[in-house]
Amino acid sequence: MKLTDIYLHLRSDINKIEKEIERNIDANHPVLQEASSHLLKAGGKRIRPVFVLLSAQFGTYDLREIKNIAVPLEMIHMGSLVHDDVIDNAELRRGEKTIKAKWDNRVAMYTGDYIFAKAVEMATNCNAPGINAVLADAMVEMCLGEVEQIRDQYNWNQNLRMYFRRIKRKTALLIAVSCQLGAIAANAPVPYQKELWRYGYYVGMAFQITDDILDFVGTEKELGKPAGSDLIQGNVTLPALYAMEKDPQLRKTIIEHLENDVINKEQVKGIIESIKKSGAVVFSKVIADRYLEKARSALDNLPDGQPKSALNQIANYIGDRKF
Amino acid sequence: MKLTDIYLHLRSDINKIEKEIERNIDANHPVLQEASSHLLKAGGKRIRPVFVLLSAQFGTYDLREIKNIAVPLEMIHMGSLVHDDVIDNAELRRGEKTIKAKWDNRVAMYTGDYIFAKAVEMATNCNAPGINAVLADAMVEMCLGEVEQIRDQYNWNQNLRMYFRRIKRKTALLIAVSCQLGAIAANAPVPYQKELWRYGYYVGMAFQITDDILDFVGTEKELGKPAGSDLIQGNVTLPALYAMEKDPQLRKTIIEHLENDVINKEQVKGIIESIKKSGAVVFSKVIADRYLEKARSALDNLPDGQPKSALNQIANYIGDRKF
Repeated sequence: MKLTDIYLHLRSDINKIEKEIERNIDANHPVLQEASSHLLKAGGKRIRPVFVLLSAQFGTYDLREIKNIAVPLEMIHMGSLVHDDVIDNAELRRGEKTIKAKWDNRVAMYTGDYIFAKAVEMATNCNAPGINAVLADAMVEMCLGEVEQIRDQYNWNQNLRMYFRRIKRKTALLIAVSCQLGAIAANAPVPYQKELWRYGYYVGMAFQITDDILDFVGTEKELGKPAGSDLIQGNVTLPALYAMEKDPQLRKTIIEHLENDVINKEQVKGIIESIKKSGAVVFSKVIADRYLEKARSALDNLPDGQPKSALNQIANYIGDRKF
Repeated sequence: MKLTDIYLHLRSDINKIEKEIERNIDANHPVLQEASSHLLKAGGKRIRPVFVLLSAQFGTYDLREIKNIAVPLEMIHMGSLVHDDVIDNAELRRGEKTIKAKWDNRVAMYTGDYIFAKAVEMATNCNAPGINAVLADAMVEMCLGEVEQIRDQYNWNQNLRMYFRRIKRKTALLIAVSCQLGAIAANAPVPYQKELWRYGYYVGMAFQITDDILDFVGTEKELGKPAGSDLIQGNVTLPALYAMEKDPQLRKTIIEHLENDVINKEQVKGIIESIKKSGAVVFSKVIADRYLEKARSALDNLPDGQPKSALNQIANYIGDRKF
């Protein structure tokens, strides 16, 4: 099953959101236009708007109101991708040349700033109270997650707790908030808002862990970047953490290779194979599945119907996703 | 007269704002703590909070409400300084080592993001409607100004209109909005809000033009960076624009020297002297004074009293300021 099949009934609304994002990023400004057209072309799953819209179906669904939160949430994600590119020196993201590769870092930084500011601006159109505060808080946490990721780079003594806190801040909270704010914007009952936040949080954790698994098991074509990119850039994710804990000799090899400035393709390949053999992928998959189980159970107290069924299917999709 | 003497009656409230900024930036996060303590130590005039507080005096002055806008406005300014340092490769700002010099660019970028997000978050505590939208819009314009500054760097064919639009977006609007939002937060009459916006806009333009003059006439000690830094970094400001227009030979020399990667101190000194001799400083001063005149006239329709008198004095101060 494809992800888009799950929310087929929202297809036309998602398209409207997409158009609105384009309008918002465009800015009628030559520099930004070129930068943002790359960003839009590189696309993405628009997973955050999907969560907003599905969650809003638990209340009074009105796209005119809901879009004021769906668009900013996706834009905040896009802004963070732009800044990630400045940070990661990633030359490729989803196969498209990054903004950084075409323009220099400075334009990329301010383009990210611009997208953030436009997102905040659009969210001020929301009528439901408290939405701006929740959104701003999610941005604050996201920034802390980014700072932590830099701090923890090449830190071989970090533990699982640091990893989980980081992905919570970097990924899970924005998805949790997408679900929560969709429900708030549609004036859904407060208990629903809370369960949807929980669902989003758990799904977000599973989503990021799956991403981190795929970075080791995916092919370069699937990933749009070489396998093992995270580790090569010093970002120690769950599979690597598990493997290094399990196999002290592998730990030593990884540190040695990565503390050197130059690491060749064969060495990367060897490290990836060793990590896979250590059982790290299976272990990480178990953890992701546990989060998905919790996500599904968060839905228990929500009324049955199409939106709940779609959210359940998304949880299944994330459990099965191959890239 | 010192700037602080003008708003002596607000001294204790400004101190409270200062404390609140510290609390907000601190974040209980080691990486940010170190970065932000440098930022706080480097200080600044806290001119935006001063404008907020003085403008609020035209309505119902309640610091508990007003601080929710004064603190974010100064933080947005601080966040932009942090990102400027990433951009400008400035090693020194007001004599303090920049965040960039101590940490790397990546931490600086996310520290800026964090400060922006915290600012937006705090502003959501405001009760007055519309404040968040005005603030977000000012941030959007500021980002556009930054992007324009990059676009116009080393552009020798730019005209005065481009310069004025840039400094409007980069500096003047945030000061205009400081005055406007202070009045809104204090529930001052709408016509006052508008006049205060105008005052802030004109003062902001004059403030930036004066800054750009000082970059040529100030000493390294006064500026905390070598004279002519703007031009050396390819930022063409009003005095340079005037001088290049007036003296085609100087224009040729400037372009030749700055298109070269290496420029020595003697050459910089020569260019600065030529710019001064061209009458550019006098011309720029006249323009700044015109803006200050407009700023003062915006105050005409406001009731007399301490706040109006202080705003007038600030306009005078900016006209006279030597660094």
